[in-house]
Amino acid sequence: MIAEAALECVPEEIAGHPAVSSRAKKLGRKAQETLLDRSYHHAAMKRLPDSWKRGRPDIVHFALMEALSTPLFIQGQLDVYVHTFGDMIISMAAGLRVPKSYFRFEGLMQGLFRDGVVKSDEGAVLMEMRKGTLADLIKEVKPGRVVGLSSAGVQSSAEQVVRKNYVDSCMFVIGGFPKGHFGDDTKALFNCTYSIEGMGLEAHVVIARILYECEKKNKREKPSQAA
Amino acid sequence: MIAEAALECVPEEIAGHPAVSSRAKKLGRKAQETLLDRSYHHAAMKRLPDSWKRGRPDIVHFALMEALSTPLFIQGQLDVYVHTFGDMIISMAAGLRVPKSYFRFEGLMQGLFRDGVVKSDEGAVLMEMRKGTLADLIKEVKPGRVVGLSSAGVQSSAEQVVRKNYVDSCMFVIGGFPKGHFGDDTKALFNCTYSIEGMGLEAHVVIARILYECEKKNKREKPSQAA
Repeated sequence: MIAEAALECVPEEIAGHPAVSSRAKKLGRKAQETLLDRSYHHAAMKRLPDSWKRGRPDIVHFALMEALSTPLFIQGQLDVYVHTFGDMIISMAAGLRVPKSYFRFEGLMQGLFRDGVVKSDEGAVLMEMRKGTLADLIKEVKPGRVVGLSSAGVQSSAEQVVRKNYVDSCMFVIGGFPKGHFGDDTKALFNCTYSIEGMGLEAHVVIARILYECEKKNKREKPSQAA
Repeated sequence: MIAEAALECVPEEIAGHPAVSSRAKKLGRKAQETLLDRSYHHAAMKRLPDSWKRGRPDIVHFALMEALSTPLFIQGQLDVYVHTFGDMIISMAAGLRVPKSYFRFEGLMQGLFRDGVVKSDEGAVLMEMRKGTLADLIKEVKPGRVVGLSSAGVQSSAEQVVRKNYVDSCMFVIGGFPKGHFGDDTKALFNCTYSIEGMGLEAHVVIARILYECEKKNKREKPSQAA
């Protein structure tokens, strides 16, 4: 679960800013149908509330790629969701691959925000987006435990966190924003919060380590299935 | 060490192709000063030799980001090199951060291919590029062991590979290309080659797991330094 992800389309209030409209023109889209992206919209973002945790689709791209590239996900033992800054929930079809090319990822996400769904050429649903808070998703998925990963959490290690918490339906929550901490609404949903290293780590590094430890735990407990 | 990386500028022979020149025009650069990228140049690449393992700067971006985001690199316990398809060697300054935004990464790499060096605003060298094969680099760095990671290697696990091989100056070599195997010249340089999973893994996943296991081994052996 990637939470409070810095992924959204350009909001109305800055759609007319020159930095935004020149980028939209290059992409051949309306400004509100392009992703908010600090790399292009830095000047325009100054007037946005909470701008420090918005407009980083690159972070979400890396985090998502990390999760979807693991054997755990590829073999159907992991569900991946993204909760965005604007309270949208994105769910991924089992085994989904997203493109490593940012240009292609951007196109996919723009389509998702516009249509609420991305389908394969054969019509299968690959990704869906709906309005919803993280609390809504937890009510729906009903995980046995909700574990937050944050540099402000209890000091531990990825191995220990997984050993203690990875039971049948544990939800690990990683922040999809550039700096700072989870909001209070998010923190209130965690059964516990851990820091897995003595320093701050990028979201994608935390994801790689937690999921790898989950795979190792699975192999230890079901050695017959181990590769 | 990321080897045979699919990172190069557009070669002369396809510089005039419409797919190439239209992308170059958008970037405001000469075609030969833009990165070869299958996302944009697919049609033009058909006539390139070995095109299946070229033009994937996105793979190199993910792999490099993975290595440079680890505490192992941040704390100065890892040197990172990229060897490219065209036999260029890129070395990274200690503690270097590369941008997660592909747009910014692309600009950085284009500058590196043009100038052979990327410097900070203060004039410090951040990345350097020079002509050289992987064999040249090994002669220079003199690692105690050279370990290839490949789905064609001996079946093992990241933990076992690190346990057996991570001594003072071990060089781990990961392929920076989309599919297939290392070339014969590269394979001949390996002391041993391992596969760390029962399935093919993306380069960035292999990097994440090997480096994480290196950190774990360091912490086990020097517990006083552990976080």
